[in-house]
Amino acid sequence: MKNDNVAIGIDIGGTKISAAVVSNGQVISEVLTYKTPDNSKDILNTILEEIESLKDQYKPKYVGIATAGTVDIDNSKVTGSTGNLPEGYNKLEFKKVIEEKLGLKTLIENDANAAAYAEFKIGSGRGHNNTIVITLGTGIGTGIIVDGKLFRGKSGAGAECGHLVINIEKKRRCTCGAWNCWEAFASGTGFAKNAKEMANEIPINERTGILKDKNPDEITTYDIIEGIKKDDPFAVKAYEYWQNLVLIGLISLANVFDPDSIILSGGMAKFINYEKLQKELEKETVVSNVKLFPAKTENYAGLIGAAFLAVEKFSG
Amino acid sequence: MKNDNVAIGIDIGGTKISAAVVSNGQVISEVLTYKTPDNSKDILNTILEEIESLKDQYKPKYVGIATAGTVDIDNSKVTGSTGNLPEGYNKLEFKKVIEEKLGLKTLIENDANAAAYAEFKIGSGRGHNNTIVITLGTGIGTGIIVDGKLFRGKSGAGAECGHLVINIEKKRRCTCGAWNCWEAFASGTGFAKNAKEMANEIPINERTGILKDKNPDEITTYDIIEGIKKDDPFAVKAYEYWQNLVLIGLISLANVFDPDSIILSGGMAKFINYEKLQKELEKETVVSNVKLFPAKTENYAGLIGAAFLAVEKFSG
Repeated sequence: MKNDNVAIGIDIGGTKISAAVVSNGQVISEVLTYKTPDNSKDILNTILEEIESLKDQYKPKYVGIATAGTVDIDNSKVTGSTGNLPEGYNKLEFKKVIEEKLGLKTLIENDANAAAYAEFKIGSGRGHNNTIVITLGTGIGTGIIVDGKLFRGKSGAGAECGHLVINIEKKRRCTCGAWNCWEAFASGTGFAKNAKEMANEIPINERTGILKDKNPDEITTYDIIEGIKKDDPFAVKAYEYWQNLVLIGLISLANVFDPDSIILSGGMAKFINYEKLQKELEKETVVSNVKLFPAKTENYAGLIGAAFLAVEKFSG
Repeated sequence: MKNDNVAIGIDIGGTKISAAVVSNGQVISEVLTYKTPDNSKDILNTILEEIESLKDQYKPKYVGIATAGTVDIDNSKVTGSTGNLPEGYNKLEFKKVIEEKLGLKTLIENDANAAAYAEFKIGSGRGHNNTIVITLGTGIGTGIIVDGKLFRGKSGAGAECGHLVINIEKKRRCTCGAWNCWEAFASGTGFAKNAKEMANEIPINERTGILKDKNPDEITTYDIIEGIKKDDPFAVKAYEYWQNLVLIGLISLANVFDPDSIILSGGMAKFINYEKLQKELEKETVVSNVKLFPAKTENYAGLIGAAFLAVEKFSG
């Protein structure tokens, strides 16, 4: 039985760890999901357990791990910025341990990169040799396909498009420490911050609609979205302001990469008016024919992409 | 006699057309320079003349042309945005005519891309498989090397980093028609505009130093540079404001590309404080070890790069 294209894909996030067996981009097993343990050692044990429980039945040849944080250029270890994972996570030797204990060749990739690769192989970016996948969630994650290959930069830390600088005057500090990163304004977190700032600027006696009797600092993304359904003027204004901030980054990336497509993924992507932004993108860029799409592989994009990358790397 | 690596390199700009014979990145002939004719037909004739006068003595096998404007993905023709060249330029069939009339295989490349390639092969980017070359001139031109290859996007129109959007509120319109492009603020033209705006904001009776008895709208880049030499407070402020605008784009590009280096070229690059920006870049980015360098190949970068690309494409 030839299982050259069968790999276990694993996605390690701050809240959960998922694993499944993937063959040619299809999940062919159940998807195992565990809450992410709060110490590094248990994360490694959880993963070993997941692999063990899938391996005998499906005979995978490889393991692909999608993880938060940056990964080195050889796809062999996590190298940094894993704020939402426990101390010591960066030191875990996933690859070494899995290869030695279980005999399965293992590749590690950043989760946004892995998700982008899945979208390129089986999602909205299929057939697009130049595409950018942007995850609009708590932060902004990006993965970039250049000439049919995942772009990783010199050290594997590339494609951090959430840290495009989008304002001249110092306006908002990003979690990375720098000023005015795209992520600080156009992510889900940014969306709520924008709305709070806008609401605070309105005098108390002029606060109507969803703002009435509300502490501006307690406005949530949910409030705005509910407000839009009722055509609440403030909600509509806050939403449009945010969408324009998303657009600013899309214009920059279109001009820099001249991609076939830009694909939006993550929790905030469903609020995007694709038709409107597509038109704006055509008007505001110096390149042509950059198509904007919603992602197709949302749920298991990370583990599917990591499995794909492992198969392509090791099966030669 | 084997001349597989000998090509004629030509650089077509809005003011002059230069041509020379290039072997392994070295200019081995005189450099012919003509004023750019004001009609397209004469541009083609000038080029044919230049090639004719170099070809018998040096026996080049190929021609590489660096040109303003975008070039198609096959490097066979100019496809757009050549504002400073005469009407009909886009329709010139350089490749076809040169190949048919003179029997020399011809490649065409955007001038910023060609210059970047020269910088990668023999300049400050030598050995850097991921590098970005930014020409700070009247506008901002960029060329990007990804994994040792010139990055061109899906259609050859990529790497337009001058059109990164760097401000949220509509502040200044770019020549491309969009708002707040990096080029509109950080190019030489942007430098002068920034200074004019800043000067206009100062009340007439408070204008001292280089601003005294001066119409703010007539301030030039030259005035500012002269002012800096005399520690003129306004000149220093205008200069620092501009350099910070340059930095904003560098931060974005470092985060997106995780390059080995960023190389600055063009007339405005000589005013950059490399040591200062290098430090800022380390502090303000999520990537590491991005080295900032001045370009080495300034004068003939375009024609040298185009010659290199022609040799690599055609000699296999």
